[in-house]
Amino acid sequence: MSRFFSSRFAELTPYVPGEQPREQVLLKLNTNESPYEPSQSILDWAASHLRPCNLYSDPDNLALRQALAKRYGVNQDEVIVSNGSDEVLNWAFAAFCDEASPAFFADLTYGFYPVFAAANRVPYTELPLKEDFTIDPEDYCGLKGTVFIANPNAPTGIALPRKAIERILQSNTDHVVVIDEAYVDFGAESCVPLIHDYPNLLVTQTFSKSRSFAGGRLGYGMGSREIISDLNTLRNSGNPYNVNNLTTAMGLAILIEDDTTRVNCAAVAGCRDATADSLRKMGFEVLPSSTNFLFARHPGISGEALYRALKDRGILIRHFDKPRIRDFNRITIGSAEQMSQFVSAVEQILQSAGRSD
Amino acid sequence: MSRFFSSRFAELTPYVPGEQPREQVLLKLNTNESPYEPSQSILDWAASHLRPCNLYSDPDNLALRQALAKRYGVNQDEVIVSNGSDEVLNWAFAAFCDEASPAFFADLTYGFYPVFAAANRVPYTELPLKEDFTIDPEDYCGLKGTVFIANPNAPTGIALPRKAIERILQSNTDHVVVIDEAYVDFGAESCVPLIHDYPNLLVTQTFSKSRSFAGGRLGYGMGSREIISDLNTLRNSGNPYNVNNLTTAMGLAILIEDDTTRVNCAAVAGCRDATADSLRKMGFEVLPSSTNFLFARHPGISGEALYRALKDRGILIRHFDKPRIRDFNRITIGSAEQMSQFVSAVEQILQSAGRSD
Repeated sequence: MSRFFSSRFAELTPYVPGEQPREQVLLKLNTNESPYEPSQSILDWAASHLRPCNLYSDPDNLALRQALAKRYGVNQDEVIVSNGSDEVLNWAFAAFCDEASPAFFADLTYGFYPVFAAANRVPYTELPLKEDFTIDPEDYCGLKGTVFIANPNAPTGIALPRKAIERILQSNTDHVVVIDEAYVDFGAESCVPLIHDYPNLLVTQTFSKSRSFAGGRLGYGMGSREIISDLNTLRNSGNPYNVNNLTTAMGLAILIEDDTTRVNCAAVAGCRDATADSLRKMGFEVLPSSTNFLFARHPGISGEALYRALKDRGILIRHFDKPRIRDFNRITIGSAEQMSQFVSAVEQILQSAGRSD
Repeated sequence: MSRFFSSRFAELTPYVPGEQPREQVLLKLNTNESPYEPSQSILDWAASHLRPCNLYSDPDNLALRQALAKRYGVNQDEVIVSNGSDEVLNWAFAAFCDEASPAFFADLTYGFYPVFAAANRVPYTELPLKEDFTIDPEDYCGLKGTVFIANPNAPTGIALPRKAIERILQSNTDHVVVIDEAYVDFGAESCVPLIHDYPNLLVTQTFSKSRSFAGGRLGYGMGSREIISDLNTLRNSGNPYNVNNLTTAMGLAILIEDDTTRVNCAAVAGCRDATADSLRKMGFEVLPSSTNFLFARHPGISGEALYRALKDRGILIRHFDKPRIRDFNRITIGSAEQMSQFVSAVEQILQSAGRSD
């Protein structure tokens, strides 16, 4: 820290992303990316749209907003695009939280929420998940503050039904309810159909998981025209050209091939369920996942020991050194072949530790 | 504005970028972009590096930081990359300004500075340029606050010599001095060589102007390890993957072809001086520019009238409806052919108005 750094950030602890190894690893199952690359036709289309990159992008991002609006059945003024969904989530903390409307979110959820709250210097309260790691919707009803729910939740993978979210929305009409749907395409109910009924709803999604575009950074938010307008006020007060030409071109191409996204998500979901079965057969407790990852623990080996044993074999998964979930690991679902390699490695580790059932 | 928007942003007025026309225009000379596209070899290189875009980028951006460090003779820990230089400037307002260290900048300078200050809710003071639109370095010496100087300045185009900046740095050792060098490659002295001597110096630059990459959004800051570390704390508390894979690939390719940048800048500077001569012959007062734009006024026609007459002919320049500079327009330097078209159009407008000398 320099001696010039403003004292208001003295306590700010940044988010720690999953490790991005510099050496070659055998399997990278630690940051919930898609195992599938965008199709060749998408890459070709993007390559042919690299120009004119000497000119600024459209600060209104009209083409992308129109394509998303069409895809989701909303109005273009009900969509904002962002440099990853982190950006729109960060704006939401800034725009809708303050002393009069503190943030509420789960104790075990996307680890960036408390960082966004701290960076924007807004108060927040963490609401504990239930013993079985599900969210109790009742905990979120009637709160005098802004609600953030990752649905499905991460790192648990567990989804709430839309009806439960609707109850929360109805009970918090004076505050915004943000539903972070980063993983929704892998099998949960989206709240986008509720947007026209609830002016206090903001839904965020991303191209990073289901759309195979983590490296391009494209997120978006959908909500009432007024909510989106507030987010635009912040966007245009920080970085009006936040989504660049290249990302826009790729995003449009990916949206055109939306069937590919659907097929990829179905493949990931199938592979996820098969992997969960394999892990359960080995004695793992696996939380019911509606995402592209599994959250699992084994009574015979600590979360950290399994993480390290896999890392020794060139396989990266994500371990969170946090209370309540220290015994778990989060495993991104790769291709069928990758998950078969992963399962074999876990079997060997358990056997060599003499802990397999 | 929604009724949910935090009252602390009630007065926030976003930055207004130069208009990005949806219809075809004849000449777009309003947002200081380069008239030259990156070379075909850069585009080919980028096209071959679109994959793997399903994976996240390196949150440390090591390759790009190393390439920039090598180019500028600094250490990789003295470089941070950003989603356009707006992002690093915004972080600087957040990191180094507060009640104890308010921001100081010129009354006529990059219009985003007061917006960054307001968005970060830090106090600021505008210091008037002199009558001739130059900065008086004395005004910036010994200030008890964080200094932001665009050098060369925009929209005036006028540069300060490095020696003048050095005096300011020496007189403000307890506060950061930010030198925004967006236009430095067109003919001003960079302060990068001062970085190792002044731990309170932050220099920001961009690929948007001299490097023909406005559409890709790539900026960077250079300063002491401690200053860069503070900026990284904010980056990692908001958007650790702020610069995506595609932009990184293009940025690396553009840096490899740095000679092209130098040649393009020399061509723009030559064309700028020739255009300035033509305008002066028509009776314009043209401020001495070290940038890729001219700032000029004519005693016979108001700034707005000239702007509108050119727009009617499909030529966009930038008019600022602000005190002191209402009679001026800012004209981006395009190619020689484009500037010849521009000069002819201005001649016709002055003649038809009967105002040519």
